[in-house]
This record gives sequence, C-alpha cells and structure tokens, in this order.
Amino acid sequence: MDWTRLDQQIRFIVEIDKLKNVYRRTYLINERRNENTAEHSWHLAMMAFVLAEYANEPIDVSRVLKMALIHDIVEIDAGDTFVYDVQAELDKAERERAAADRLFALLPPDQAVEFRQLWNEFESRKSADARFAAALDRMLPQLHNYYTQGGSWKEHAITVDRVVAKNATMNEGAAVLWTWTQKLLADAVMKGFLAKTP
Amino acid sequence: MDWTRLDQQIRFIVEIDKLKNVYRRTYLINERRNENTAEHSWHLAMMAFVLAEYANEPIDVSRVLKMALIHDIVEIDAGDTFVYDVQAELDKAERERAAADRLFALLPPDQAVEFRQLWNEFESRKSADARFAAALDRMLPQLHNYYTQGGSWKEHAITVDRVVAKNATMNEGAAVLWTWTQKLLADAVMKGFLAKTP
Repeated sequence: MDWTRLDQQIRFIVEIDKLKNVYRRTYLINERRNENTAEHSWHLAMMAFVLAEYANEPIDVSRVLKMALIHDIVEIDAGDTFVYDVQAELDKAERERAAADRLFALLPPDQAVEFRQLWNEFESRKSADARFAAALDRMLPQLHNYYTQGGSWKEHAITVDRVVAKNATMNEGAAVLWTWTQKLLADAVMKGFLAKTP
Repeated sequence: MDWTRLDQQIRFIVEIDKLKNVYRRTYLINERRNENTAEHSWHLAMMAFVLAEYANEPIDVSRVLKMALIHDIVEIDAGDTFVYDVQAELDKAERERAAADRLFALLPPDQAVEFRQLWNEFESRKSADARFAAALDRMLPQLHNYYTQGGSWKEHAITVDRVVAKNATMNEGAAVLWTWTQKLLADAVMKGFLAKTP
C-alpha cells in the first residue's frame, strides 16, 4: 500500500488541532471564559442536526453538517474577526482566502477541491444548504449573549439595531428561526441584556 | 405557530454548551493544556469526514458524523472516564446511561428517540457506522499522544502493550488505520514517547 495519501490526511488532521487555540468574542454559556472556534464549530454542527427541519428550502443535512465543521477552519491563520468590528471586516475576505489556500492544500488534491468548494459555497451563501448553515451561524452567538445576560453585547456596547441589521440575513436561510430570534432580542432589551441606544 | 417544540430544542442546544467544560486526559497537540470534550467531538467528526474511505465496510458518512458529534455528550453528567482507568471503567456504563436518560429527554420525543438510538448504536458497535466511528475515537488520542512526545501516555506511565490491547478493536472498524497506527506506536516506542515496560 502507498501510504502517502493517508499521511497527507493525517497531516491535515493534526494541523487543524490549532483551531482549539483560536478564541472568539463570545462567552461560554456556563462558564466565564471565551469560546474557541473548535468548540463553536461542534456546537454549530449539533445545531444543524437538531434544527434541520426549520430550513426554508429542502437541504442535505450531511452537507450542512460538513459546512458547519469546516466553516471557520481558516481562522487558524486568519484569526477570528468580530462580526461588529467594521475595520477588521474590510480585509477579512482576503485573509481568509489566503488561509483557505494553505490549509486545504494539505489534503490530497481531490479532497482539497471538495473541502474548498464546500467552504466557498458557505461563504457565498449561494445554495440552500449554505443559507441554512449561515443562518445558524448567526443565531448561535445570540443565544450565547442572551444566556450570559448580555455577554459580549454589553462588553462591546452593541445596540439592538446593530444586532438586527447584522443578523436579518437569517431570514434567507431559516425564517422561523429568525422570527424566534427576534422575540429573544425583544426579551433581551426588556431585561436589560441588550441596549436600545448607545 | 406552536413554539413548544423549538423551545425544547433550544433548551437542549443551550444545555450541551456544558460539554465545553468537560476536560479529558489528552493534551492539545499545539498547546500545553488538556482538551475538552466539545473540541474532541469536533475533531472526531472532522476525522470521519476526511478518513471515511478507510472504513472496513460501506458506511453512511452522515450517520458517522452525527455519532461523532453526540458520542460523548453524556460526559456532561458522567464526566470523562480515562480509558486506562480500570476502576472508573467499572461503573462507567451505568453513569453514562443515566446521563443519556436525562440529556436526550430534553429534546422533543421523536428526536429524543433518534439521538438515543444513535448513541446506543455507537456504544454497542453493532453496525458498520458505529464500528468505524469507534475506531476513529480510538485513533485520535494516539495522534495527540504521539504529537505531544508522549503526552498523557507518559504522565500516566502507560506502556505499549496496554495501548495495543486497548486499541486493537480499531481493526474491526478500520483495519488500514489500525495498521497505520501500529506503525505510529512502534515509532513512538523507538523515539521514547511510549514505554515498553513499566
């Protein structure tokens, strides 16, 4: 047997361990520390598994799971970009593209293409699977912020209008979940977890 | 719309955030800290995605991914049991069953049944999907230990005969990967990462 292919795959598996060292602005729900991107990716995949029935259009759950697993792998090189950081958002696409070039190329060529296409699809939201996965990726941090009584919303003085503006695209992938989330936001404002004005 | 079902699903999603606070004996490959079970579950699912071609029998990758995502969720209540801890292994099954009873019951009844069956299937290794998922779950900590120059093998004075005895079941799910892993173990012994005798 030629072990080259497997060796390449193992090299990728070992490399992506680094995602466990990339920290996000979001706080864990049950402990006062920031969440890392590997944990977040697991949680997002679980969410896709549990909430699949709420996709606007028919989806292939298996592809959505795969997208959830790899959607933030580029952060190994590019770091996590805070969704409300206007400056960092400017060159985010470029940084993440370079990261995707390096990371997926560790895989054997056929898988490099498969993984890259899946990641591109997620980024561009050009399929029902991608729109649903992206909607969940918007929803999850809002759960974290609500269940930590404001968490990173408060820390960064984010107001409800910015949260709504940033997350309304949830509607394209999962309208029911966006309706539910808007109720959550209204409740967050009422409880003082989320500010109406700066 | 009746929101009860979605409320139950969200309660489950919020509850499982606790898996990010369950720490394993394994060390991260790229940083000197113990790994938590949520990160491990993400890594295992990624491994299933990358290495699916090495299953002994035809598998349904989507089911293997789902098993990988939920296989250790019971550790939220039962804690992580070190695979070489003979004493703790004795009542592990009982503790984990009780945890499964509580956690999956948070979901709507149809999903509670689906998730529980999938978890039971993984535990009993009675299907090709489960045998493959279990083989990967055995392989991954060995990668961590090798790439940390002995990591938790050294810390707990584990010898190569115990590693082989514990992980030979990999052969039932992924014979090629077990062959590869045996070469890794031989190399670990040669490099002094893994002891031959206590």
